[in-house]
Amino acid sequence: MVVDLSELALKAGLADYSPVRGCMVIKPYGYAIWELIQKELDARIKECGHENAYFPLFIPESFLKKEADHIEGFAPECAVVTHAGGQKLEEPLVIRPTSETIIYHMFSKWIHSWRDLPFSVNQWANVVRWEMRTRLFLRTTEFLWQEGHTAHATHEEADGEALRMQKVYYDFMTKILALAPIVGQKSDSERFAGAEKTYSLEVLLRDGKILQAGTSHCLGQGFAKAFEIQFQTPNNELEFVHLTSWGVSTRLIGAIVLGHLDEKGLILPPAVAPIQAIIIPIYKTEEEKNKVLEECQKIASELKLAGIRHKIDSNDQTSPGAKFNEWELKGVPIRVQIGPRDVQNNQVELVRRDKCEKLKNIPRLGLPEKIQSLLTEMQDYLYERQLAWREENTYSADSIDELEQILETKGGFIKAHWNGKADTENKIKELTKATIRVKAFDEPEEKGKCLISGEESLQRVYIGRAY
Amino acid sequence: MVVDLSELALKAGLADYSPVRGCMVIKPYGYAIWELIQKELDARIKECGHENAYFPLFIPESFLKKEADHIEGFAPECAVVTHAGGQKLEEPLVIRPTSETIIYHMFSKWIHSWRDLPFSVNQWANVVRWEMRTRLFLRTTEFLWQEGHTAHATHEEADGEALRMQKVYYDFMTKILALAPIVGQKSDSERFAGAEKTYSLEVLLRDGKILQAGTSHCLGQGFAKAFEIQFQTPNNELEFVHLTSWGVSTRLIGAIVLGHLDEKGLILPPAVAPIQAIIIPIYKTEEEKNKVLEECQKIASELKLAGIRHKIDSNDQTSPGAKFNEWELKGVPIRVQIGPRDVQNNQVELVRRDKCEKLKNIPRLGLPEKIQSLLTEMQDYLYERQLAWREENTYSADSIDELEQILETKGGFIKAHWNGKADTENKIKELTKATIRVKAFDEPEEKGKCLISGEESLQRVYIGRAY
Repeated sequence: MVVDLSELALKAGLADYSPVRGCMVIKPYGYAIWELIQKELDARIKECGHENAYFPLFIPESFLKKEADHIEGFAPECAVVTHAGGQKLEEPLVIRPTSETIIYHMFSKWIHSWRDLPFSVNQWANVVRWEMRTRLFLRTTEFLWQEGHTAHATHEEADGEALRMQKVYYDFMTKILALAPIVGQKSDSERFAGAEKTYSLEVLLRDGKILQAGTSHCLGQGFAKAFEIQFQTPNNELEFVHLTSWGVSTRLIGAIVLGHLDEKGLILPPAVAPIQAIIIPIYKTEEEKNKVLEECQKIASELKLAGIRHKIDSNDQTSPGAKFNEWELKGVPIRVQIGPRDVQNNQVELVRRDKCEKLKNIPRLGLPEKIQSLLTEMQDYLYERQLAWREENTYSADSIDELEQILETKGGFIKAHWNGKADTENKIKELTKATIRVKAFDEPEEKGKCLISGEESLQRVYIGRAY
Repeated sequence: MVVDLSELALKAGLADYSPVRGCMVIKPYGYAIWELIQKELDARIKECGHENAYFPLFIPESFLKKEADHIEGFAPECAVVTHAGGQKLEEPLVIRPTSETIIYHMFSKWIHSWRDLPFSVNQWANVVRWEMRTRLFLRTTEFLWQEGHTAHATHEEADGEALRMQKVYYDFMTKILALAPIVGQKSDSERFAGAEKTYSLEVLLRDGKILQAGTSHCLGQGFAKAFEIQFQTPNNELEFVHLTSWGVSTRLIGAIVLGHLDEKGLILPPAVAPIQAIIIPIYKTEEEKNKVLEECQKIASELKLAGIRHKIDSNDQTSPGAKFNEWELKGVPIRVQIGPRDVQNNQVELVRRDKCEKLKNIPRLGLPEKIQSLLTEMQDYLYERQLAWREENTYSADSIDELEQILETKGGFIKAHWNGKADTENKIKELTKATIRVKAFDEPEEKGKCLISGEESLQRVYIGRAY
């Protein structure tokens, strides 16, 4: 299925292009999805004991340069403020592309003793990366995200925290976004700039491409040494802390759209659907209109009481058929249709967005419960469908030709042997435009030979073409 | 009372200085207050039918220049990105000091017909104004805020909307922040740059100074003409829309702190207190400790069930006395003290932060209900106290000498006659360092003579020294 996410996002009213290169406007319908994502994920982050804080948008250029790998990775993407208040600044300020450097500067002021550890903060903020090629939601110059940062006394503890947060993301993505990511570790060349290990979650989209939907990094002591974050141990020795950082962004909205869509448009998982049930009145005469709209209001009150997000589409400039199309495009999970005969017979017609299946003669009595149970079913079904999609589109390749052929004809995840080295990784990318997405945690051991070098390999990795 | 807000904010753990000039770090305790403000205010904004969206951080320099007053007002405060992605930009980008220009550019794309009106969006975002003198929370280079924008078919409707949102702020500030602002209209020279009328809410703080805590602007058609936002009327004519914008910011945290504090530190209104009840165990022996902590856990579970935000301070490095001081400094509304004898007698001791009054022998049974009712009482009491403070510190002056004398000896609001002109307004400022804060809506008519010119005036205005 060939999909133009940008066109779809525009049509469904999720976003619009802005007059600033690569920046989008997130429209109310798209932003409402982000608010639901924030609410659900924020609660999970807080349950881990991480509190929210806010750090400056600006980072002194010298800070970015303190960790060598970090500046190398981010320098080409930085937007720089050189003038402010009508004057040239003494030191240029970089708009944060990520906040490790400024947050760890503060950590060095706040952390003194082993009693202060573990130490953590999370931040919901905008960040800016000057990307060459942008795409609504998937890669925008400015995007919104959450970035968590923790400091620990031992490497083991930090690594455990990075893995824990990856699990939190996994739990959130499967249960709330109904996505079925592959979880594992990135190759060295795909690591975050300044990290020791990057754990990631990779989602197979309906167009056969792969999306990195979230990452969690064990940063080791590199940043701690660069920013002199030391703590006194119980034995009165000074040691550097071990850091982690982890984040997900508005890119998740792209993952939802491309992970679940069909030829009619979006299919939103009920847990993040701003409107879970759209009520559409159907009538011809003025008398019918009054009757039907009155009943719609009653249904709306009942849905409100039941905590179901809903809306009546009472626009009388549009035909019911056009409304069906519009709300299908927007991915609303349940459509409630009601006409004069339905009012008379105390019933409605329901249509589930995922299966596009009509449920006729649904009794009015108990309607909120019926809708609630359909929403729950649909949430589960979408996850199962995404999981099945991933499984059906995961292949194995034992030669570079086979890899290329699958990529060209089918897309998806391709599992293959690789010797773990950067040169062969680059060669795969060069030959196929696909990248090594992740070394999956649950991949069984299996002896094989590297696609490129023929060297021995003990485990297959996931390869695919990524956004 | 002389108060150093910055010192207090640092000590109480609300914020910290950052390495970037004029930017602060909002620490978890301060940010949790902001989250409660956001939650309460966002619900009220949504009840008005305004939906959230997100617009770019960057504004092309040419956009800012389209409305002449607007650029004149904001140009001196702009931070400018001149380089990005390793290259010099063709057109510099300004970091939004406020988003009228970019939002109204989008409005011109989205609004076509009278059927599209009224049209509105709200945005929670960071903005940057390069201020010369900054102060934690009250005036920072970067701050967080909400800015709402609406478009209407008629001037009357727009003006009504600006007034409605001012009322929403008033309701929010009185009920949730327990503040008692004076509401009214700003003088022409204190209007928002590009507005026709600015309505404001002015709070008298405990140090006798005034804080502009929120504003709502009727923008008329100036921006609509600059950005060509036209709509087709039912008669097929093209007309320009009438716009409003309104916002409050993290400055509100400063208003809360300075509006309620006492010599011991912060007093947080329960509705925005991140911790409403702090539980402090008191013990000497290990056996006592176990017993008391067990009881603290039971209390915490009960408070959780009752929806009361709470925390146990079980730090055994600090004495109970030091804990009392710390949580008083942080403004936690209710302190729950419990020792071995209390456990035995099924009771606790409570201390209300506002009155610093000890309530002994409070029965354990029904403790959450007792605390809840104290929180409600305290919320009301703080509002009454703030209102009384304002009333007690509102004076009248009939000469410039009298005005100056009150300002020097007492501070507060001073009501005086003024002829409504800019030159006399400037003269007042020059002579007294005080400004005309607001023409209050509920100020009765009264004939008098302008302090400076002696010309006739029909109503007193509120004057004070402001942050």
